[in-house]
Amino acid sequence: MIDDNILSIIGIMAGILILSGWVEQLIKGYKTKSLKDVSKYLMILITGGAILWIIYGVEMKDPFIIGTNITAIALMMAVLFMKRKYDRKLKAERAQFKE
Amino acid sequence: MIDDNILSIIGIMAGILILSGWVEQLIKGYKTKSLKDVSKYLMILITGGAILWIIYGVEMKDPFIIGTNITAIALMMAVLFMKRKYDRKLKAERAQFKE
Repeated sequence: MIDDNILSIIGIMAGILILSGWVEQLIKGYKTKSLKDVSKYLMILITGGAILWIIYGVEMKDPFIIGTNITAIALMMAVLFMKRKYDRKLKAERAQFKE
Repeated sequence: MIDDNILSIIGIMAGILILSGWVEQLIKGYKTKSLKDVSKYLMILITGGAILWIIYGVEMKDPFIIGTNITAIALMMAVLFMKRKYDRKLKAERAQFKE
Protein backbone atom coordinates (compact mmCIF):
# COMPACT_ATOMS: atom_id res chain seq x y z
CA MET A 1 0.00 0.00 0.00
CA ILE A 2 1.15 3.50 -0.83
CA ASP A 3 1.33 6.13 1.91
CA ASP A 4 -1.71 8.44 2.01
CA ASN A 5 0.34 11.58 1.34
CA ILE A 6 1.96 10.00 -1.71
CA LEU A 7 -1.47 8.89 -2.90
CA SER A 8 -2.69 12.49 -2.59
CA ILE A 9 0.26 13.70 -4.65
CA ILE A 10 -0.51 11.04 -7.29
CA GLY A 11 -4.15 12.18 -7.37
CA ILE A 12 -3.16 15.82 -7.76
CA MET A 13 -0.50 15.06 -10.39
CA ALA A 14 -2.95 12.88 -12.35
CA GLY A 15 -5.41 15.77 -12.52
CA ILE A 16 -2.74 18.35 -13.35
CA LEU A 17 -1.28 16.28 -16.20
CA ILE A 18 -4.61 15.82 -17.97
CA LEU A 19 -5.65 19.44 -17.46
CA SER A 20 -2.23 20.67 -18.69
CA GLY A 21 -2.91 18.76 -21.89
CA TRP A 22 -6.09 20.79 -22.38
CA VAL A 23 -4.35 24.06 -21.56
CA GLU A 24 -1.78 23.17 -24.22
CA GLN A 25 -4.62 22.46 -26.65
CA LEU A 26 -6.09 25.89 -25.88
CA ILE A 27 -2.71 27.58 -26.47
CA LYS A 28 -2.22 25.69 -29.73
CA GLY A 29 -5.72 26.69 -30.84
CA TYR A 30 -5.07 30.31 -29.94
CA LYS A 31 -1.77 30.35 -31.84
CA THR A 32 -3.04 28.68 -35.00
CA LYS A 33 -6.53 30.28 -34.75
CA SER A 34 -7.93 26.95 -35.82
CA LEU A 35 -9.70 24.18 -33.96
CA LYS A 36 -11.70 22.74 -36.81
CA ASP A 37 -10.17 19.25 -36.47
CA VAL A 38 -11.19 19.09 -32.82
CA SER A 39 -14.62 17.48 -32.46
CA LYS A 40 -17.17 19.58 -30.59
CA TYR A 41 -18.79 16.35 -29.41
CA LEU A 42 -15.52 15.55 -27.66
CA MET A 43 -15.95 18.62 -25.45
CA ILE A 44 -19.70 18.05 -24.99
CA LEU A 45 -19.27 14.39 -24.05
CA ILE A 46 -16.33 15.13 -21.73
CA THR A 47 -18.46 17.77 -20.02
CA GLY A 48 -21.30 15.25 -19.57
CA GLY A 49 -18.85 12.68 -18.24
CA ALA A 50 -17.25 15.24 -15.92
CA ILE A 51 -20.65 16.11 -14.40
CA LEU A 52 -21.20 12.42 -13.62
CA TRP A 53 -17.63 12.11 -12.26
CA ILE A 54 -18.36 15.04 -9.93
CA ILE A 55 -21.49 13.28 -8.60
CA TYR A 56 -19.43 10.10 -8.25
CA GLY A 57 -16.61 12.00 -6.53
CA VAL A 58 -18.98 13.68 -4.10
CA GLU A 59 -20.46 10.32 -3.11
CA MET A 60 -16.99 8.76 -2.79
CA LYS A 61 -15.82 11.88 -0.90
CA ASP A 62 -12.87 12.06 -3.30
CA PRO A 63 -11.53 15.62 -3.64
CA PHE A 64 -9.20 14.75 -6.55
CA ILE A 65 -11.99 13.44 -8.74
CA ILE A 66 -14.15 16.48 -7.88
CA GLY A 67 -11.37 19.05 -8.40
CA THR A 68 -10.12 17.59 -11.67
CA ASN A 69 -13.60 17.43 -13.15
CA ILE A 70 -14.70 20.93 -12.15
CA THR A 71 -11.56 22.31 -13.79
CA ALA A 72 -12.13 20.04 -16.80
CA ILE A 73 -15.60 21.50 -17.39
CA ALA A 74 -14.20 25.05 -17.33
CA LEU A 75 -11.50 24.06 -19.84
CA MET A 76 -14.01 22.28 -22.10
CA MET A 77 -16.18 25.41 -22.18
CA ALA A 78 -13.11 27.49 -23.08
CA VAL A 79 -12.08 25.16 -25.93
CA LEU A 80 -15.67 24.95 -27.20
CA PHE A 81 -16.07 28.74 -27.14
CA MET A 82 -12.77 29.22 -28.97
CA LYS A 83 -13.60 26.55 -31.55
CA ARG A 84 -17.00 28.16 -32.22
CA LYS A 85 -15.33 31.51 -32.80
CA TYR A 86 -12.64 30.19 -35.18
CA ASP A 87 -15.05 27.89 -37.04
CA ARG A 88 -17.36 30.82 -37.74
CA LYS A 89 -14.47 32.96 -38.94
CA LEU A 90 -13.31 30.15 -41.23
CA LYS A 91 -16.82 29.70 -42.61
CA ALA A 92 -17.13 33.45 -43.25
CA GLU A 93 -13.77 33.51 -45.02
CA ARG A 94 -14.70 30.55 -47.19
CA ALA A 95 -18.02 32.16 -48.11
CA GLN A 96 -16.19 35.32 -49.13
CA PHE A 97 -13.73 33.34 -51.20
CA LYS A 98 -16.56 31.78 -53.21
CA GLU A 99 -18.13 35.11 -54.12
CA MET B 1 -26.40 9.01 -0.03
CA ILE B 2 -26.89 7.37 -3.39
CA ASP B 3 -27.47 3.60 -3.55
CA ASP B 4 -24.32 1.60 -4.40
CA ASN B 5 -25.79 0.17 -7.60
CA ILE B 6 -26.75 3.62 -8.85
CA LEU B 7 -23.27 4.87 -7.97
CA SER B 8 -21.79 2.05 -10.05
CA ILE B 9 -24.00 3.02 -12.97
CA ILE B 10 -22.89 6.66 -12.60
CA GLY B 11 -19.24 5.55 -12.55
CA ILE B 12 -19.69 3.43 -15.68
CA MET B 13 -21.68 6.13 -17.48
CA ALA B 14 -19.09 8.79 -16.58
CA GLY B 15 -16.37 6.67 -18.16
CA ILE B 16 -18.45 5.79 -21.21
CA LEU B 17 -19.36 9.43 -21.93
CA ILE B 18 -15.76 10.65 -21.91
CA LEU B 19 -14.51 7.70 -23.93
CA SER B 20 -17.36 8.11 -26.46
CA GLY B 21 -16.10 11.66 -26.99
CA TRP B 22 -12.72 10.30 -27.98
CA VAL B 23 -14.24 7.65 -30.24
CA GLU B 24 -16.16 10.46 -31.96
CA GLN B 25 -12.88 12.40 -32.31
CA LEU B 26 -11.30 9.33 -33.91
CA ILE B 27 -14.22 8.96 -36.34
CA LYS B 28 -14.08 12.67 -37.21
CA GLY B 29 -10.32 12.41 -37.78
CA TYR B 30 -10.78 9.34 -39.96
CA LYS B 31 -13.47 11.03 -42.05
CA THR B 32 -11.64 14.32 -42.59
CA LYS B 33 -8.18 12.66 -42.71
CA SER B 34 -6.93 15.57 -40.65
CA LEU B 35 -6.01 15.92 -37.00
CA LYS B 36 -3.52 18.77 -37.33
CA ASP B 37 -5.46 21.06 -34.96
CA VAL B 38 -5.40 18.42 -32.23
CA SER B 39 -2.37 18.90 -29.99
CA LYS B 40 -0.14 15.84 -29.69
CA TYR B 41 0.77 17.01 -26.18
CA LEU B 42 -2.90 16.64 -25.28
CA MET B 43 -2.71 12.91 -25.97
CA ILE B 44 0.74 12.56 -24.34
CA LEU B 45 -0.31 14.42 -21.18
CA ILE B 46 -3.63 12.57 -20.93
CA THR B 47 -1.71 9.28 -21.21
CA GLY B 48 0.63 10.39 -18.41
CA GLY B 49 -2.34 11.44 -16.29
CA ALA B 50 -4.18 8.20 -17.03
CA ILE B 51 -1.18 6.14 -15.85
CA LEU B 52 -1.26 8.05 -12.53
CA TRP B 53 -5.05 7.65 -12.31
CA ILE B 54 -4.61 3.89 -12.74
CA ILE B 55 -2.12 3.80 -9.83
CA TYR B 56 -4.55 5.94 -7.82
CA GLY B 57 -7.48 3.71 -8.78
CA VAL B 58 -5.61 0.54 -7.83
CA GLU B 59 -4.80 1.98 -4.40
CA MET B 60 -8.40 3.19 -3.94
CA LYS B 61 -9.64 -0.18 -5.26
CA ASP B 62 -11.87 1.74 -7.66
CA PRO B 63 -12.70 -0.32 -10.79
CA PHE B 64 -14.30 2.64 -12.63
CA ILE B 65 -11.21 4.82 -12.40
CA ILE B 66 -9.03 1.88 -13.50
CA GLY B 67 -11.29 0.80 -16.38
CA THR B 68 -11.83 4.29 -17.76
CA ASN B 69 -8.14 5.10 -17.73
CA ILE B 70 -6.95 1.85 -19.33
CA THR B 71 -9.41 2.43 -22.18
CA ALA B 72 -8.36 6.10 -22.34
CA ILE B 73 -4.72 5.15 -22.90
CA ALA B 74 -5.70 2.83 -25.78
CA LEU B 75 -7.78 5.62 -27.35
CA MET B 76 -5.00 8.20 -26.90
CA MET B 77 -2.56 5.89 -28.67
CA ALA B 78 -5.05 5.44 -31.52
CA VAL B 79 -5.59 9.21 -31.95
CA LEU B 80 -1.84 9.89 -31.71
CA PHE B 81 -1.06 7.21 -34.31
CA MET B 82 -3.74 8.55 -36.65
CA LYS B 83 -2.57 12.15 -36.19
CA ARG B 84 1.04 11.18 -36.95
CA LYS B 85 -0.05 9.48 -40.15
CA TYR B 86 -2.19 12.38 -41.40
CA ASP B 87 0.35 15.04 -40.37
CA ARG B 88 3.06 13.27 -42.35
CA LYS B 89 0.81 12.99 -45.38
CA LEU B 90 -0.05 16.69 -45.14
CA LYS B 91 3.62 17.62 -44.86
CA ALA B 92 4.48 15.48 -47.89
CA GLU B 93 1.68 17.07 -49.92
CA ARG B 94 2.79 20.57 -48.98
CA ALA B 95 6.40 19.78 -49.90
CA GLN B 96 5.22 18.52 -53.29
CA PHE B 97 3.15 21.65 -53.82
CA LYS B 98 6.20 23.85 -53.32
CA GLU B 99 8.30 22.05 -55.93
